[in-house]
Amino acid sequence: MADKGSVSQAVISRLPRYYRYLGELIEQGVERISSNELSELMGTTSSQIRQDLNHFGGFGQQGYGYQVEYLYEEIGKLLGLEKEHKLIVIGAGNLGQALANYGNFEKRGFNICAMFDRNEALIGKTTVRGIPIYGMDSLIEYVVENQIDIVVMAIPKTSSVEVAESLKDTGIKGIWNFSHTDLDMGKDIVVENVHLSESLMRLSYRISDL
Amino acid sequence: MADKGSVSQAVISRLPRYYRYLGELIEQGVERISSNELSELMGTTSSQIRQDLNHFGGFGQQGYGYQVEYLYEEIGKLLGLEKEHKLIVIGAGNLGQALANYGNFEKRGFNICAMFDRNEALIGKTTVRGIPIYGMDSLIEYVVENQIDIVVMAIPKTSSVEVAESLKDTGIKGIWNFSHTDLDMGKDIVVENVHLSESLMRLSYRISDL
Repeated sequence: MADKGSVSQAVISRLPRYYRYLGELIEQGVERISSNELSELMGTTSSQIRQDLNHFGGFGQQGYGYQVEYLYEEIGKLLGLEKEHKLIVIGAGNLGQALANYGNFEKRGFNICAMFDRNEALIGKTTVRGIPIYGMDSLIEYVVENQIDIVVMAIPKTSSVEVAESLKDTGIKGIWNFSHTDLDMGKDIVVENVHLSESLMRLSYRISDL
Repeated sequence: MADKGSVSQAVISRLPRYYRYLGELIEQGVERISSNELSELMGTTSSQIRQDLNHFGGFGQQGYGYQVEYLYEEIGKLLGLEKEHKLIVIGAGNLGQALANYGNFEKRGFNICAMFDRNEALIGKTTVRGIPIYGMDSLIEYVVENQIDIVVMAIPKTSSVEVAESLKDTGIKGIWNFSHTDLDMGKDIVVENVHLSESLMRLSYRISDL
């Protein structure tokens, strides 16, 4: 198997999509699939699928195809989904609540432990799924004590830089960043950005000639 | 200026980020910036910036740098932001409400006109920003009559394929898809996907060696 560091971002970014399609095939009771069939389903080419999966050892047998459940589990392991992750969400507004209450994350081992907010009216309450909302003053202590590894940043950019800075030495491994700014956390903390307005602008660009 | 069709997806996907940084420079009162300074700010290379912007005619003058406001406006035009867009959000759950109430979209000309949901308890209500929530039975008529051009899909995958299918001949130009499936809308309707759980899995992959 290739050293994970040598695998390109483009390949990595396609793995979750393979995982999703394989999960759907399992739901449909499909046990085995050829790279041709999978490529048709996914609207890609069979050579791309073979190339992508070869980075991780291949998983398939010539003329036999892929065993769906095996491949699903192996990609899941690559994606780190066999481990439990402990998350908190900073910002209990609409977006934070939407993320905290999305049950599918938990099914994949992403456990949302708590939310944090400045808004006194929210502190002490719980979300519809029973996740507690705490004040910002208990943030650092909570993260350290509970060995949180992923922080979801669902607050405006005006405060996210400062909050992210305060989390640098707490042992967190990643920030899932929805705030509209880039966070520089150094090499020991991974930042994955979801800049929603940038996605909407890409859509706007693509429809502007239609 | 290059034909937009010839510009690579990678370049296009970087335009909103340029737009964001230039907007912040304007807020800070910066009038002119060199590609070197901009590249340092954005953590990229000045040659990438020059190459990217050259696809659209360059915008800069050798030894003089870029005029921030001019470049901001030109990129805005490229992104189609000088036009008004009419949006509806399907799904008035947490995520739909988060998207509908995000005021920054409106500042950029993306006007959320209405929301649609199956849930009888929500129909007839309005969101905190006063956006009306209608039942699904009035969806098609509303979209056609109000010349909606972008549909935000914030419903589960179990219903999104069917709903998207019903929207094919309504004149919409794009779907901003948050449902956890790929929507095939043909060549006349653009689909921009935001698959949140895939983003979280990429983060999980990247932290799994830390």
